[in-house]
Amino acid sequence: MVNISLEDIKNARECIKDVIHKTDLIPNNTLNDICGSNVYLKLENLQKTGSFKIRGAFNKIANLSDEEKKAGVIASSAGNHAQGVALAASVYGTKSTIVMPTTAPLAKITATRNYGAEVVLHGHVFDDAYAKSVEIQSETGATFIHAFNDPLVIAGQGTIGLEILEDMPDVDAIVVPIGGGGLISGIALAAKNINPKIKIIGVEPTNAASMKESAVAGKAVTLCSALTIADGIAVKTPGDLTFDIVKQYVDEIVVVEEDEIANAILFLLERCKLIAEGAGAASVAALLNGKVQLPGKKVVAVVSGGNIDVNMLSRIVDKGLTKAGRKTELTTVIPDKPGQLQKLLKTISDLSANVVEIYHNRIRNGVELGYAQVDLVLETNDSQHLNKIIEELVNKKYSVERKS
Amino acid sequence: MVNISLEDIKNARECIKDVIHKTDLIPNNTLNDICGSNVYLKLENLQKTGSFKIRGAFNKIANLSDEEKKAGVIASSAGNHAQGVALAASVYGTKSTIVMPTTAPLAKITATRNYGAEVVLHGHVFDDAYAKSVEIQSETGATFIHAFNDPLVIAGQGTIGLEILEDMPDVDAIVVPIGGGGLISGIALAAKNINPKIKIIGVEPTNAASMKESAVAGKAVTLCSALTIADGIAVKTPGDLTFDIVKQYVDEIVVVEEDEIANAILFLLERCKLIAEGAGAASVAALLNGKVQLPGKKVVAVVSGGNIDVNMLSRIVDKGLTKAGRKTELTTVIPDKPGQLQKLLKTISDLSANVVEIYHNRIRNGVELGYAQVDLVLETNDSQHLNKIIEELVNKKYSVERKS
Repeated sequence: MVNISLEDIKNARECIKDVIHKTDLIPNNTLNDICGSNVYLKLENLQKTGSFKIRGAFNKIANLSDEEKKAGVIASSAGNHAQGVALAASVYGTKSTIVMPTTAPLAKITATRNYGAEVVLHGHVFDDAYAKSVEIQSETGATFIHAFNDPLVIAGQGTIGLEILEDMPDVDAIVVPIGGGGLISGIALAAKNINPKIKIIGVEPTNAASMKESAVAGKAVTLCSALTIADGIAVKTPGDLTFDIVKQYVDEIVVVEEDEIANAILFLLERCKLIAEGAGAASVAALLNGKVQLPGKKVVAVVSGGNIDVNMLSRIVDKGLTKAGRKTELTTVIPDKPGQLQKLLKTISDLSANVVEIYHNRIRNGVELGYAQVDLVLETNDSQHLNKIIEELVNKKYSVERKS
Repeated sequence: MVNISLEDIKNARECIKDVIHKTDLIPNNTLNDICGSNVYLKLENLQKTGSFKIRGAFNKIANLSDEEKKAGVIASSAGNHAQGVALAASVYGTKSTIVMPTTAPLAKITATRNYGAEVVLHGHVFDDAYAKSVEIQSETGATFIHAFNDPLVIAGQGTIGLEILEDMPDVDAIVVPIGGGGLISGIALAAKNINPKIKIIGVEPTNAASMKESAVAGKAVTLCSALTIADGIAVKTPGDLTFDIVKQYVDEIVVVEEDEIANAILFLLERCKLIAEGAGAASVAALLNGKVQLPGKKVVAVVSGGNIDVNMLSRIVDKGLTKAGRKTELTTVIPDKPGQLQKLLKTISDLSANVVEIYHNRIRNGVELGYAQVDLVLETNDSQHLNKIIEELVNKKYSVERKS
């Protein structure tokens, strides 16, 4: 096992301190009320490039020899690591090449280019892009920057642990999302070396629990698939370095479901005014759903990143509103006569609901001749308000079917 | 003019320090690139209760006599002040009554109740609620807590100025949204008393520029209307105290348009991973749109709050995606024969666009017999991707009309 000392992490902190932002640690009362712990969020979503990845990438690149810096760096990533490497390399005027699958979101391709990288698009999936990056590496002699399985990268991520302990020396537990394991390895090494009593708890999506399954198997295993909305931690195989560190230093790994992650994203947005990506919200999902139970303890949840596609965010918000009874699809049937639709809409507007969409259909199956079916999408304050509207419609003899 | 000294603000800081969160000041490179200044965001949207209002409300309530605390407090507000007063009062076990219009969003009513206030719903607009609160005040002898026109409230908001100068003693300018003027009065008093060279710039929505118009008139004037998505600063009449302080200490007031505010909300969400309400985004809107030009200077923009209705946020996101070519409504016409719709959809899916909604209509005006009109809502990567799809459709002899 490669030895990474507290000293290495302190050196990393010194190395990166002028480039990264020391992120804030903020309390949240609502979260406390729900999970019974004293929770603080470590806001790496507000870090430069929108995730913690800049820490490890910068520490790695800063420690290259002048000759290596001159030869450039290469990485393969469709996400946060790409932006971290690109920005870190540009600080040293080092050429960076990032190989991304052609399916990578254009927003991330553009962001990576804007940080100064040459982006090579290759293949449809990550593995194709990775193979291409190995090929380019052997041709150019550039240094390959691994996203997690590298001591300097791990030491860089460990600086988050130092910051947490500086701001809150009496922290009882730190909850950290796990992808390849670089983030939790660094934080665990820092925290346990300062105070071995601090609990380190990892969180993985059930759909991509490669570290947990590896822990059970006693060796790094490879999943067949890793499909999750927490794309930042959708890793099929943990690193061997990170696997060893996690085995030694991490107390527990818990798993969270896809809808728990989506709800945590919405919770952070509504209650904490923060945008988190799926991976970033995983730690909060674990706390919201009782996967981590530490009543009365001081718990830090690392919100690791905020790079979520806005279309995805928009869908999560819509689904959340629907679930909370604030956006609802109702179907009713009205006589197919002038004035009937207006009468229906008046009932709704009298109760201050907003009609977002409306469809009026005469020929749908099951609708009697002389009647028309009306589908409505309504915005309401909450499920109480929605129930009042449904009740009033039923009182006025409308049939009401709730579709979402 | 009532005198509020630097000492008063320092006392306020001491008074509130265990209750409020010292918010972070974070840099943003994208904003720097756009406006040419060195911009830092002061994150009062991450403050307890989701806005700065807790600072002033707490300082006011803390300074009441024991007898006054026992008699309770009352305020009238549909927004952030309500939550600030409710939380501040609950810290002292003081009964708080908040009068809100019946039209207040249920989320804010619930939040205010959860912070411990008794909420009285009265009237349809703010003025009705205000009148009711005066009535209750005279009956109960509770202390009325004004949202801005009060020296202790102003001193409380001024603590933001102290925090900014502590974290960045060489700040050149502070950009602050103006509603009633309490926030900017406090910050200006703190900053100018420490260093008179610091520029203080106020921002108002064009639709609710009561302070700017008052400055022009030389006295506090009342607007006929104040309709803006920045509802937190939709104030028709500034306070007389705040008007005097602004006149003396504020260097300039600029105005921003509604779509500039909406775009700033989207910018903060996408680029900074932060939820801001309209008022909170106003300072960033001013910087993004060249209303404040301070090239090379260190500028702090105060993001005053994040309490935005999620339905509103969802609409802003949708509009923003449409504008960026990432969500688009297209209309075309196809022969009304089996297989034609499938053929159209294959062309679109071959180019990796996602169909969100589809309407197929035979009877619309202008559609020839034997043809059907198809309206499509598509999700695309960006306008380049969208243009490629339109081009391909035109190549295949489809008529294409872009509707949004």
